[in-house]
Amino acid sequence: MTQLDYAKQNKITRLMRKIAQEESIDVKLLIDSIAKGQSVILKNNVYNLAKPCGVGKVLHTKINANIGSSIDKSSIAFELKKLKTAVSYGADTVMDLTITEKAINTLKNIRCKCPVPLGTVPVYQAAVEAAKKKGSFLKMDKDLILDVLIQQAELGVDFFTIHAGVTKESLSKLKQSKRLMDIVSRGGAILANWIYANKKENPFYEYFDDILKIARKYDITLSLGDGLRPGSIFDATDTGQIAELRILGMLAKKAFNNGVQVIIEGPGHVPINQVVKNIKLQKKICNGAPFYVLGPLVTDVAAGYDHISGAIGGCLAASAGADFLCYVTPSEHLRHPSIDDVKEGVIASKIAAHAADLAKNPGNSDGWDRKVSIARRNKDWKTQIELSINPEKATRYRKSSTPKNKKVCTMCSDFCSIRLMDKAKKLCLRD
Amino acid sequence: MTQLDYAKQNKITRLMRKIAQEESIDVKLLIDSIAKGQSVILKNNVYNLAKPCGVGKVLHTKINANIGSSIDKSSIAFELKKLKTAVSYGADTVMDLTITEKAINTLKNIRCKCPVPLGTVPVYQAAVEAAKKKGSFLKMDKDLILDVLIQQAELGVDFFTIHAGVTKESLSKLKQSKRLMDIVSRGGAILANWIYANKKENPFYEYFDDILKIARKYDITLSLGDGLRPGSIFDATDTGQIAELRILGMLAKKAFNNGVQVIIEGPGHVPINQVVKNIKLQKKICNGAPFYVLGPLVTDVAAGYDHISGAIGGCLAASAGADFLCYVTPSEHLRHPSIDDVKEGVIASKIAAHAADLAKNPGNSDGWDRKVSIARRNKDWKTQIELSINPEKATRYRKSSTPKNKKVCTMCSDFCSIRLMDKAKKLCLRD
Repeated sequence: MTQLDYAKQNKITRLMRKIAQEESIDVKLLIDSIAKGQSVILKNNVYNLAKPCGVGKVLHTKINANIGSSIDKSSIAFELKKLKTAVSYGADTVMDLTITEKAINTLKNIRCKCPVPLGTVPVYQAAVEAAKKKGSFLKMDKDLILDVLIQQAELGVDFFTIHAGVTKESLSKLKQSKRLMDIVSRGGAILANWIYANKKENPFYEYFDDILKIARKYDITLSLGDGLRPGSIFDATDTGQIAELRILGMLAKKAFNNGVQVIIEGPGHVPINQVVKNIKLQKKICNGAPFYVLGPLVTDVAAGYDHISGAIGGCLAASAGADFLCYVTPSEHLRHPSIDDVKEGVIASKIAAHAADLAKNPGNSDGWDRKVSIARRNKDWKTQIELSINPEKATRYRKSSTPKNKKVCTMCSDFCSIRLMDKAKKLCLRD
Repeated sequence: MTQLDYAKQNKITRLMRKIAQEESIDVKLLIDSIAKGQSVILKNNVYNLAKPCGVGKVLHTKINANIGSSIDKSSIAFELKKLKTAVSYGADTVMDLTITEKAINTLKNIRCKCPVPLGTVPVYQAAVEAAKKKGSFLKMDKDLILDVLIQQAELGVDFFTIHAGVTKESLSKLKQSKRLMDIVSRGGAILANWIYANKKENPFYEYFDDILKIARKYDITLSLGDGLRPGSIFDATDTGQIAELRILGMLAKKAFNNGVQVIIEGPGHVPINQVVKNIKLQKKICNGAPFYVLGPLVTDVAAGYDHISGAIGGCLAASAGADFLCYVTPSEHLRHPSIDDVKEGVIASKIAAHAADLAKNPGNSDGWDRKVSIARRNKDWKTQIELSINPEKATRYRKSSTPKNKKVCTMCSDFCSIRLMDKAKKLCLRD
C-alpha cells in the first residue's frame, strides 16, 4: 500500500503524522490533500530515510538541489561534497543527475550519505548503459529501462523523473511552435532522438503501466518530466509545451487512479507576466497535482546570475501555487556547478520558497521573520546573525566592517534609524 | 521653464527627443506621459549631464545605486570607486547618501565623475551641518535647509529626496499601527526626532512651497521620500505607511501644478502578496506619478542576500508598474557596502528591471534576450559570454571548467540537449 492508498482509505499513517507535525499543520489537512492527489510524501518504502518530506498544497514550499557527474566532471567524492553542502544550506530534496557510466555507483554512494529524499532521472542511466552495451543510447529498450528503474528503486530512490510526455504527438505539436531554442531538456532531447531514430513511441509513455507497477511497489513518487519545457522566453507557454502538459495531466490521472503518487515538472524560461498563468494552467490540466518548477528563469540574459533570475520566477510561481522549486545555480548555461555554486543556488531558492510561504501561509511561516525583526529592533546583533539565512556570511560581513558604536552598523553609524527612534521614544515620553 | 512646463505646452525639447530615441519610443508618447506627470526626465538645467535619463510609464525600468560615506566609513576615494563600479555595471542613476561633515565636498567630487543623474537626500547635509554649527541635528531650521538645497542645486544635483510626508499627522497615524520596527528610514527618523523635539511641523512639509521654487528654478525632480516605509514584513501597507502616501499624493499634485517634476518613493519590506497592491495604491493615490521603490524586500531573513530578496520584490513591482528600482546590496542590514557589494547589488537590480521590462514591453525590450538565445542555440560561446549580464564572471566560469568538446559545456558534455537536437534534426531530415 502506498501513502496515497492509505489516504484514499482515510487511514492516517505514522509517516503522515510525522510530516504534519514538522509542518505545524493538522494531519487531517494533509491526508485530505494526499487523497485528492494535491500533496505527496517523498519516501521509498524499502529504505530507512532520515528526513522524508511532503510536497503539495497545504505544505511549505520545498526546494530541490541537483547534483551529479557529467562526462567532463566525474568524481563521486566531489558530488558527495556537493550533497553535504546542499543539505547543510537547506535543500529539502536532492536529485542525482549523473549521466556517466558510473551512474549506479555514484547513486549508491549518494544514497548512503543523503538524509533527504533522493530523486533521479532514470533515462540517464538507461542511455549510458545502452551506449556502453550496445554502442548507442538510441538502442535502449523496454527491458533495459525497467531494469534500471528496479535497480534504482531497490537502492531506495524516492522519486523518479519520467519523461513520458515527449511523444510522437507532442513532438509534432512542437514543430508547429517554430521554437527559437527547440528542446533544452536533456531527457527530452534523448527521447526525441530515440523516437526519431527508432520510429517508435517513447518507451516511458508506451510502457507507463509497467512503470506504475514499479512505482507502486516501492511507493516511489513519479515526477512527470517536462521534456518540452521552453529554453528561452520566446518559447514559453507555446503549443509544444502545452501539448506535453496535457499528456502529463492524463498520465497523472492514471497514476493517481493506480495509487501512485505523482507530481508534475514545469518550466523553464518564462517571462514574469506568464508565470502565474503557467501555474494556473498546470493546476487545471493536472487536477491540482503538485507542481515542481525549474526556476522559472524570467530572462535569458542572466548567465552567471541565473540563481537570481530563478529566485524571481520561483518566488512568484510558488506564491501562485507551485509547490516545489528546483534550484538554479550561478553556473547554469555555463558549466558543471562548483561547491560554491551549489551553496548560492540553494540559498537563493530557499529565499524564494520562504518568501512565497509568507504569502501562502502554511503552518507558522512567519515565525522566522518575526524573530529576526525583533532582534533587529533590539539591536541584538548576535541573534540577527544567528538567524540570518547564512550566518557564516553575515558574521563575515559584520566582522569586516566594525562600527565605533557596537550597537549600530557602519552603514548609518550614529544616524542609525533604530537608534534614533529609541531617542524619539524618550522625547515622546517627555511630552 | 522645466521639462514639465514644456510638455504641458506640448513643446518637444531636444532633451525629450534624445530620451525618446534612446528608449526606442515615439517622442509623442514621452511628451504625453511627462505632461500627465507619469514620466520625468532627471536633469538639472545648470549642469551639463552626460547621460540624462527618463523615468516613468512608457519608459524602460531604471535602477539607482546608492553610494556615500558614513561616520564609520568615510573616504571620498572609496566612494568614487563605488560610483565607477555602479555605472560600469549599468546603474541608470546614482544617489550620494553621504551623512558626514564632508557631505558637500564628497558631493562635489562625485558630481564631477558621475555621468548619470545624481540624487541626494538634502536632510543629511542639513542634519550634519546643524550638528556641527549648533551642537545638534535637532537644531536645523528653514534657512539652513534651504541653503543646503540651493548649494546642492548649484552643484548640479538632478533629484532630491524630500521627506515631506513625515508630519505630525502621519506620525500620529503611525502610532496607531503598533509597528514591530517603527521608523527605519534614516531621513524619516531624523525628522520624527526633529518634530518631537521642536514640537513643530516638519520643515520640509511646512516650507514645501519654498522647496518647489528651488526645484522649479533648476528643474530638479523631487523624489518624495517615504520616511514611514515598513522595515519588516509585519509593518507593510499599514496605517502609518498609507497616511504618509496620502500626504505624498497631495504634495505631488502641488508640485505638478507648479511645473515641478515629481516621483514618489516606496517600500521597503513587503510580502510578495502585497507588492502589486502597493503599486496600484501608489498609482491611484499619486495620480500615476512615477514610483521609485527600495527593493521591496519580500522577507526579513535574508541579510547577506538582500540583493536577491530585493530583486524578487523589485521585478514583481516593476512588472506591475513601478518605474524605478533602488538597488539593495548584499550588505543591507549588516554594513556599509564594499565595491563588490555595489557590483552585486547593481547586477541583481538590473536583472529585476530587465525581466520586468520583458513584461511591460517599452521599446525593443526583448532584443537582448533574442540575441543571447540565438547565440545559445548556435553554441556560439563567444557571443553568449559577451552578451551576458557580467561577461567577466561568465568568462571566468567558462574558463574554470573546460569541456573536451568545445561546442558544449561541462554540465551535460556530449549529452548537451542543443547538440542532441542538432542530431535529431538530421534524423528528421532523413525521414
